[in-house]
Amino acid sequence: MIAGKVFLFLLCLNVVSFAVIASSPQTCPADDVSSKCGASDEWKGEFFPGIPKIKYEGPSSKNPLSYKWYNADEEILGKKMKDWMRFSVAFWHTFRGTGGDPFGAPTKFWPWEDGTNSLAMAKRRMRANFEFIEKLGVDLWCFHDRDIAPDGKTLEEANANLDEVVALAKELQGKKIHPLWGTSQLFHHPRYMHGGATSSEVAVYAYAAAQVKKAMEVTHYLGGENYVFWGGREGYQTLLNTDMGRELDHLARFLEAAAAYKKKIGFNGTLLIEPKPQEPTKHQYDWDAATTANFLRKYGLIGEFKLNIECNHATLSGHSCHHELETARLNGLLGNIDANTGDPQIGWDTDQFLTDIAEATMVMLSVVRNGGLAPGGFNFDAKLRRESTDVEDLFISHITGMDTLARGLRNVAKLIEDGSLENLVRKRYQSFDTEIGAQIEAGKADFEMLEKKAMEWGEPKVPSAKQELAEMIFQSAL
Amino acid sequence: MIAGKVFLFLLCLNVVSFAVIASSPQTCPADDVSSKCGASDEWKGEFFPGIPKIKYEGPSSKNPLSYKWYNADEEILGKKMKDWMRFSVAFWHTFRGTGGDPFGAPTKFWPWEDGTNSLAMAKRRMRANFEFIEKLGVDLWCFHDRDIAPDGKTLEEANANLDEVVALAKELQGKKIHPLWGTSQLFHHPRYMHGGATSSEVAVYAYAAAQVKKAMEVTHYLGGENYVFWGGREGYQTLLNTDMGRELDHLARFLEAAAAYKKKIGFNGTLLIEPKPQEPTKHQYDWDAATTANFLRKYGLIGEFKLNIECNHATLSGHSCHHELETARLNGLLGNIDANTGDPQIGWDTDQFLTDIAEATMVMLSVVRNGGLAPGGFNFDAKLRRESTDVEDLFISHITGMDTLARGLRNVAKLIEDGSLENLVRKRYQSFDTEIGAQIEAGKADFEMLEKKAMEWGEPKVPSAKQELAEMIFQSAL
Amino acid sequence: MIAGKVFLFLLCLNVVSFAVIASSPQTCPADDVSSKCGASDEWKGEFFPGIPKIKYEGPSSKNPLSYKWYNADEEILGKKMKDWMRFSVAFWHTFRGTGGDPFGAPTKFWPWEDGTNSLAMAKRRMRANFEFIEKLGVDLWCFHDRDIAPDGKTLEEANANLDEVVALAKELQGKKIHPLWGTSQLFHHPRYMHGGATSSEVAVYAYAAAQVKKAMEVTHYLGGENYVFWGGREGYQTLLNTDMGRELDHLARFLEAAAAYKKKIGFNGTLLIEPKPQEPTKHQYDWDAATTANFLRKYGLIGEFKLNIECNHATLSGHSCHHELETARLNGLLGNIDANTGDPQIGWDTDQFLTDIAEATMVMLSVVRNGGLAPGGFNFDAKLRRESTDVEDLFISHITGMDTLARGLRNVAKLIEDGSLENLVRKRYQSFDTEIGAQIEAGKADFEMLEKKAMEWGEPKVPSAKQELAEMIFQSAL
Amino acid sequence: MIAGKVFLFLLCLNVVSFAVIASSPQTCPADDVSSKCGASDEWKGEFFPGIPKIKYEGPSSKNPLSYKWYNADEEILGKKMKDWMRFSVAFWHTFRGTGGDPFGAPTKFWPWEDGTNSLAMAKRRMRANFEFIEKLGVDLWCFHDRDIAPDGKTLEEANANLDEVVALAKELQGKKIHPLWGTSQLFHHPRYMHGGATSSEVAVYAYAAAQVKKAMEVTHYLGGENYVFWGGREGYQTLLNTDMGRELDHLARFLEAAAAYKKKIGFNGTLLIEPKPQEPTKHQYDWDAATTANFLRKYGLIGEFKLNIECNHATLSGHSCHHELETARLNGLLGNIDANTGDPQIGWDTDQFLTDIAEATMVMLSVVRNGGLAPGGFNFDAKLRRESTDVEDLFISHITGMDTLARGLRNVAKLIEDGSLENLVRKRYQSFDTEIGAQIEAGKADFEMLEKKAMEWGEPKVPSAKQELAEMIFQSAL
Repeated sequence: MIAGKVFLFLLCLNVVSFAVIASSPQTCPADDVSSKCGASDEWKGEFFPGIPKIKYEGPSSKNPLSYKWYNADEEILGKKMKDWMRFSVAFWHTFRGTGGDPFGAPTKFWPWEDGTNSLAMAKRRMRANFEFIEKLGVDLWCFHDRDIAPDGKTLEEANANLDEVVALAKELQGKKIHPLWGTSQLFHHPRYMHGGATSSEVAVYAYAAAQVKKAMEVTHYLGGENYVFWGGREGYQTLLNTDMGRELDHLARFLEAAAAYKKKIGFNGTLLIEPKPQEPTKHQYDWDAATTANFLRKYGLIGEFKLNIECNHATLSGHSCHHELETARLNGLLGNIDANTGDPQIGWDTDQFLTDIAEATMVMLSVVRNGGLAPGGFNFDAKLRRESTDVEDLFISHITGMDTLARGLRNVAKLIEDGSLENLVRKRYQSFDTEIGAQIEAGKADFEMLEKKAMEWGEPKVPSAKQELAEMIFQSAL
Repeated sequence: MIAGKVFLFLLCLNVVSFAVIASSPQTCPADDVSSKCGASDEWKGEFFPGIPKIKYEGPSSKNPLSYKWYNADEEILGKKMKDWMRFSVAFWHTFRGTGGDPFGAPTKFWPWEDGTNSLAMAKRRMRANFEFIEKLGVDLWCFHDRDIAPDGKTLEEANANLDEVVALAKELQGKKIHPLWGTSQLFHHPRYMHGGATSSEVAVYAYAAAQVKKAMEVTHYLGGENYVFWGGREGYQTLLNTDMGRELDHLARFLEAAAAYKKKIGFNGTLLIEPKPQEPTKHQYDWDAATTANFLRKYGLIGEFKLNIECNHATLSGHSCHHELETARLNGLLGNIDANTGDPQIGWDTDQFLTDIAEATMVMLSVVRNGGLAPGGFNFDAKLRRESTDVEDLFISHITGMDTLARGLRNVAKLIEDGSLENLVRKRYQSFDTEIGAQIEAGKADFEMLEKKAMEWGEPKVPSAKQELAEMIFQSAL
Repeated sequence: MIAGKVFLFLLCLNVVSFAVIASSPQTCPADDVSSKCGASDEWKGEFFPGIPKIKYEGPSSKNPLSYKWYNADEEILGKKMKDWMRFSVAFWHTFRGTGGDPFGAPTKFWPWEDGTNSLAMAKRRMRANFEFIEKLGVDLWCFHDRDIAPDGKTLEEANANLDEVVALAKELQGKKIHPLWGTSQLFHHPRYMHGGATSSEVAVYAYAAAQVKKAMEVTHYLGGENYVFWGGREGYQTLLNTDMGRELDHLARFLEAAAAYKKKIGFNGTLLIEPKPQEPTKHQYDWDAATTANFLRKYGLIGEFKLNIECNHATLSGHSCHHELETARLNGLLGNIDANTGDPQIGWDTDQFLTDIAEATMVMLSVVRNGGLAPGGFNFDAKLRRESTDVEDLFISHITGMDTLARGLRNVAKLIEDGSLENLVRKRYQSFDTEIGAQIEAGKADFEMLEKKAMEWGEPKVPSAKQELAEMIFQSAL
Repeated sequence: MIAGKVFLFLLCLNVVSFAVIASSPQTCPADDVSSKCGASDEWKGEFFPGIPKIKYEGPSSKNPLSYKWYNADEEILGKKMKDWMRFSVAFWHTFRGTGGDPFGAPTKFWPWEDGTNSLAMAKRRMRANFEFIEKLGVDLWCFHDRDIAPDGKTLEEANANLDEVVALAKELQGKKIHPLWGTSQLFHHPRYMHGGATSSEVAVYAYAAAQVKKAMEVTHYLGGENYVFWGGREGYQTLLNTDMGRELDHLARFLEAAAAYKKKIGFNGTLLIEPKPQEPTKHQYDWDAATTANFLRKYGLIGEFKLNIECNHATLSGHSCHHELETARLNGLLGNIDANTGDPQIGWDTDQFLTDIAEATMVMLSVVRNGGLAPGGFNFDAKLRRESTDVEDLFISHITGMDTLARGLRNVAKLIEDGSLENLVRKRYQSFDTEIGAQIEAGKADFEMLEKKAMEWGEPKVPSAKQELAEMIFQSAL
């Protein structure tokens, strides 16, 4: 069957329309653990036979396994595409995503899985991860401590498991590949049901600290460039049983200690907080960029942390993704982007791969204004739909995500070269490029002076905002 | 000033980037009615001096006043673009839109307005309407009875006003131009605050009937191809003071009488109901396509009415626009499209011009599947933003709206020619293209037979839904 | 520890404030299956030691384990409370709810659970179910086929498992207790990832039919009064890969076959469809009451099915729960209520126990207008929060849910006795209680006659809708 | 007719059920300006004949024009109710609310209105305002500069108009009545279409400054206790044409100048910012409490401003009202409450009077924790529904709003006296009331120490959060 598929893909290159691959899922049924389906620890073969290294073939290619817009080494706006994008594969979605949801059991049974969460299985998965990364042609990956290695009955055992898998990852990484960031999973285990840093139980707070300490160490060891905090359970379900003030104080203390530990171990990566509004708790404390910025300012942590903006989290909080990016940027906090998208009509995190060209263009506008994201990048915090069960779907989805953002970058280049949009905005504010404008902007214009001016000037002239023209210019670049 | 603008636009044709027009609004201040600003009844001049007839210049044109994608007479998928699109200008938004909103006074003071709602002003506006339509190069328009002519102190006076304006419109229309549809405005006047057909007051029900009777007559007289019912106040604010059952019965009786009257006067146009969910009343009875279809079926009106689907109403009801179009189509009810869009993060009808290419492509997919919309079409039920106050903005917005849908049609043609997407869908369901599938579809497969088959077949094989591949194919056509 | 708890509860009865029970969870850790934690198959003990039979103690009671408002045999509005309410325990939430969510592992480890999904465990759970039902003092329960019994490697094995558990349930039910309804779980297993009746695979359609056939048989055997269809996967994720028309046709054929089979086996229970809008699929076909009614009418199934309205599904579809109830009632389709509630700010089904007194009063208003729900009732399709891990919490939540609806019924009685609200509504429509009103309602008032009336009557008088007075009256009854 | 109504109300006091008042609206038709309907400047009569001073009659009263729960001088939790509540009438909604909406003309034609916005009319309205305030029995009112006095052709003329009306207000206020706060309306006039402080036009910025300067002066003159900034147009419609960074800088400069001017004129009132998320602009800069707090912190304005939390704005931003209150309180920013509510299913500001008892109880919990709101209070930023057109409706709505919050306060007293809820919360966090907890809270627990503890303690015990019990306790107090 695998052979047939290879054949099919080779064929793809010659046909004029997209090949529709109708294969049955490559599964290892959950109840078939005893069989050799998952093979032995010493899985030596190729994980993705038949999948070639993905290459750039240009917009007219009909080959699903090619880039149509992302050309890693092509220079756009003075930088190579790969340096603008800094794409990263998310280990958890790609290798631990099961297709399960609140109403259903897992649907994905990759051929390398044996139905266990053993150490051997963890290592095999890690090999698959690096083959995937290399075939995709990216240099970065992101991980959770508990997704790459099995948990233990004790913290010590969990740490030992982690060390073993991390050692393998270090070896497999080679010289070029390294983590965009690492993070600690403080939301899945029942001990965290009331939060990690904001748990009502002091022992859980300590446990969370120990887990972050270790995850930060291994991120540093692997050459990670950033470390992320997503407060999966840092929030409340109802204020009736919650002391929100005390919980927020605890969270600040926790992050303070994390920043201190980072320095202690000589880790120079950026610490990032990832805002999200209302899932899984009814109110997540790091609601959106502005809320998180307020928290950092209130507790004197503003210099120590930046933000990891996720597009789907942005829309769940009632903002556009580009609004959140601009808010982070204007607060000096834009550190990283979790590249995904949500369904505007669905009230939870669908973590889809971004396919909207207009949105991608707005996202890249912020990135270009920010001069890029480094040492941050674009992490594909995105997953296959539950119903997508072919191994190829893992590649197809990443390719589309990368191509969409690459198209966004190309569009931004067109917009900048054209200059009309920038010109339109500059002209809108030109009345402030005056002496009185400068005084206002310097904080030297008091109400009495302004009132005098207002009376002198009489009724202001107010021109059109030209929104429709701006939209026309923008769309023309798509 | 006007001359300068003409010059500017001529220049546009030669420049490489979009001209940014920074003009002050061409206003007639509301308090300047006495001046000659609005001029006399006998306005003889051009309403849009400096605006040429809009022509197709192709995608590389930087002229804001040109079509880049809409080429009326070009043939696509076997039909001229203009015959697929059947674009219509909405009189109310274009000529009665003031830029006012719940928090602000009007912002638009077009040079031909004199600050009144007189009969003379109504006629002058009608002349502007036809100059606009001709410069845009479309053949269709839509109107409300109370927006094209002033209301009266009595119904008789209102009808006389309407007759006078309609007579002028008939004359100005010439041979080619005619209404896509007419409608009656049963929501603005305070008498309709509890509804028209669903008002708790019998006298209001009668008044509404009289108004629809007249509006239907003038639509017929003008050669209108359809007649629309949007139940602006047909709904409730709270069930605490509402007899919903009685109100729905009244609505059915009203529509029954409308259908009867249509036949009586020999009007062959389609009667259309326009669904909308929750504005202005908390619950509008014609919530969405399915709700309205249920109403029509319940009251035996299913053969008499079709639907006018508005994209912004679709998203307000929690559906995508293309879902509503497909729902209407599958119920045999797709009659017309109100072409606009809303902001996915805003909970009211923003009535923006559609600029999203992906959405436009999905919309056009439904239209092509429907074999077109005739005798319906695309009515631009869309308005300038409050802050867009230049006369040119009226053109720019329509041009973008038309170009966006034209791009959508061109994309659909690409998708159909490529064939991959259709192929993917067809293959998904191929297991029903079998003998047992045929039996099921014919209603001949009972539970006993199916159970036997299920036991015989054992665990079903379930292939990937290939959503990401479908998205890749779709995006490639954009 | 258990003993301590009993003592604590006894104490409750004497104290003036609510006892706050701070116990650690009564858990059987998942990795402790080998221990005697879950005990043997022959679990003979009490499942809920220390929990007495819940009794009515009146509104001033501070005992968490007592009813404050629900007094089963008290007569209200001519019927016993228990006959109005017909409360039912949902097996799946109460006995299979784990506290797991998309971000976290199970949190609930009830003392009777052994960490398996064995047949022995299924039977033990069934015993717990009936002890729970009896202690709560209700007569009805609801079940899914796959939640009460383990699935099998084959359909035959699954059916055999089901038969064995059902036989025990039949025995344990005794004479009074029986299912309010049964249903078949067609959404959890990966085979159903594309739907059951609307799957793109014919073998899945057949499997689903076989599963419903069996579930309907056992519901009948157990004396169930209704049978429910919730189309957990009957919907689409994207229209790009979906043939919605074909899927809806299949759904209709499936329901047709179900109705035929019901008659064949002599099952007289009501068939109920449970609408839900957009979870787990982006668009669920049975979106809301009106959409489902349209489907039933379109396919000629209107006499065969009624609706099971779930409050949380109602709010997810943009409606209030009472709107959905009234819509069902006015379409002659109100069959059952899934009594729960959602968080108005959260976009997914939280399935919380209803605690809002105002909402409960509106719900009961519909029920009273419907003359009760029998043979339907109130099923508690509601679950403990993830963080609620005490066995007592299962009781506390049900008690509050029952008390809230009981309070609603008492409030309705007050409203009806007062009469003001009904009077206000009746007066609003009194202009239709006239000769012309009667003609309109009889369909005898044509547009010409109505126009004549409108002109004769002149400008209508339109009184205040008195919404704020209605709200005052309503609130006074709470 | 008026006489008949008086009679009806007197009757109310004796009847057992709520009187349903079915009167036609007391209107002055808009086109009847010439008649004596609106009477002369020297309106000497009573504005609300037949409406007595509203008195407390207790919960069993069926008189719509009585307080059932609000008993101004009754002491609750150590303070008089009126001192907890500090109710204020909003001039704009009560006296300038017309019932108009985006789809409809005004519906309210109060007998004292003459259809103009003249200075004489403004004064007459002011007299009505104080009669209303006195009959309601409150001491506070709130106003916008342009709502209490007519605008002028110039700023000077507008200021003169304002002075004249303010002089009358000062006289009518007497010794006890004074403004809770004043504000400046910077959103209605077209000059503000791009914002006031964030307008792209410098002349508009100056105009806005001049208007705030004047409004602050008159607020001070009238004895106002606070001054509010609601940035009605401070936001953006699209980032395509917006320089958000520059606009936010301007806003900060503007507020800085306002704070300086306040000191200069010796005004000791609190300056308040009122957050709102997305209406009328797509993104309002003062989105919610946290966003506004971040802005204040970023620009060093944190000591100069507090927040005015509006419940309907809270829910539009995806938060509960009590979340926003607690967020403001924990940031030391809770200054005032705009007491209203929205429909959870409607995406715009409906500004309804709060009638939900549970929500009112949560609101009052925050207020009690804050030790009250003084010098802030509860402003009824709420309006009659469009369809409520009787003069009495103005009273009925305020009475219900006041009674609802009064009920909330009584419930809070019950909760506090019972003690169970507070106890439950205190116990949840008791593990932090330990030595290690104290170290953490003092910032003395580093990651190494915490890791040591975590290993020492082993797997944490995590008790139930008892949410359902908390809800039961809470509901019992309602």
